[in-house]
Parts: sequence; C-alpha cells; structure tokens
Amino acid sequence: MEPVALTEALATFDAVWSPRIVTTVNDYDVRLAKAEGEHVWHVHEDTDEFFLVVTGELTIALREKDGERDVVLPPGSVLTVPRGTWHKPFAAPGTAILLLEPAGTPTTGDAHDPVPDHVDSTTGHAWHP
Amino acid sequence: MEPVALTEALATFDAVWSPRIVTTVNDYDVRLAKAEGEHVWHVHEDTDEFFLVVTGELTIALREKDGERDVVLPPGSVLTVPRGTWHKPFAAPGTAILLLEPAGTPTTGDAHDPVPDHVDSTTGHAWHP
Repeated sequence: MEPVALTEALATFDAVWSPRIVTTVNDYDVRLAKAEGEHVWHVHEDTDEFFLVVTGELTIALREKDGERDVVLPPGSVLTVPRGTWHKPFAAPGTAILLLEPAGTPTTGDAHDPVPDHVDSTTGHAWHP
Repeated sequence: MEPVALTEALATFDAVWSPRIVTTVNDYDVRLAKAEGEHVWHVHEDTDEFFLVVTGELTIALREKDGERDVVLPPGSVLTVPRGTWHKPFAAPGTAILLLEPAGTPTTGDAHDPVPDHVDSTTGHAWHP
C-alpha cells in the first residue's frame, strides 16, 4: 500500500481516453486517464460517474430534459454525471482526469454512438507503479 | 448539476478535520476537508477509505502487521487505506484533502482513540455552493 503520485502515473502511459486503475475503494475503481479531443456520446443507465480534472480542461456535453448543454471543468474541479444522463466529454490537449465508478463500468456506457478509433472501450486497465 | 471548483469550495469554510460533502456518487460521498495537525487513531472495519491530497501534505500513520509506519502524500497523490487498518492522518498547515467513502461512514471510524476537540466526529456535513 503506497501512495500514487498522479503526475508520475501519467508519465507512464500515452494513450488518451484509455483509463488506468490506480487504486480501488471497495468495489469502486479510481481511474486515471489522459484526455484529448472528443470522447463519444454514451450513457450509464445504472451508475453515476465522478470526474475530477487533474490538468487541462474538460468539457462535458450533457443531454438533459431541457436540451443539450456543455459544462466546463477547469483543473481542480469535480462533477458527478447522474446515472441515465447521456454525456460526451471532450478535452483540450494536455488534459488528465480522475474518474470514480463501480468496477466493471465500461467507458462507453450501456449505450453509445459509434465509438471512434481514438476512444478505448474498456472497463479500465490495470496499472502498477 | 454544476461543477465544484475545489479551491472555491475550500474558501467557504475554515474548520479543519470537518469534511464537507461536495458531491455524491451513487451511495458514496465525495468529501472535502481542511486538515492541520493530528487526527485520531481509528479504524473502519467494513470499508476502505480513499484520500487525495489537494494542497499541502498529508501523512497517514498506519498500523500494519509488521508494525507502525508513516506514509507521506504530497499534493496530487492518492492512497486507499484498506478496511480494518488502524490509521491516523496528520497534516501540515494549509492542507486540503478529498475523501471518498460510503455515505454514513463516520470520520472517526468504528473504533478510535479519545477524540480531541479539534477533530469533528461526523458523517460529513452538507455543502452547497
């Protein structure tokens, strides 16, 4: 049981939209991802999803009952996207995010638009220092 | 559903070791706390506890089977303390931490040493922007 320095962990991989599981909390994963460009519209029907912006800037497009809107997250900010809410993250170059969700949650949700090649459809990758 | 800037949230309260619930993820709380000086030896028998250091430096003393040791977390680092592990955080002035644990988890665990006046024994306080 050793602490993980997020900056050091980020230096160990290059792929964007391909989260690494840096630690777990009970049956939840704490996932670290680089982000750049557009993710994909998707929805998690049965779980909320927590975002913390480590570096850069993340925008999350949301489809809500009153329509679509973009929420901008600067570094050091957090947001929980409620279950059942279609969303599409997109990010400036150099963005890194921390995600929290139940282990086994797919990055592209239970339903999604066609997944582009630069988006990794995964339940997160093991990571070790 | 609006993002929370952690620095701005920290500016809204002064108490140390008295977490504010800044968002929730399913039945988990994301709690933000100022930290300074010693917390108290305690144990969560049934849940892991996740720490992320926002500013300052957090040290977590741990009682493990081979004895006691201190783990130092600089800003931008994370650690999960496993369930059943006695631990005592302590912090440099100006430290702020983000915690993740099941809603209802007491800050002083299921068992603890005598709680000093400067430590708030709570399940977290509601927080609104």
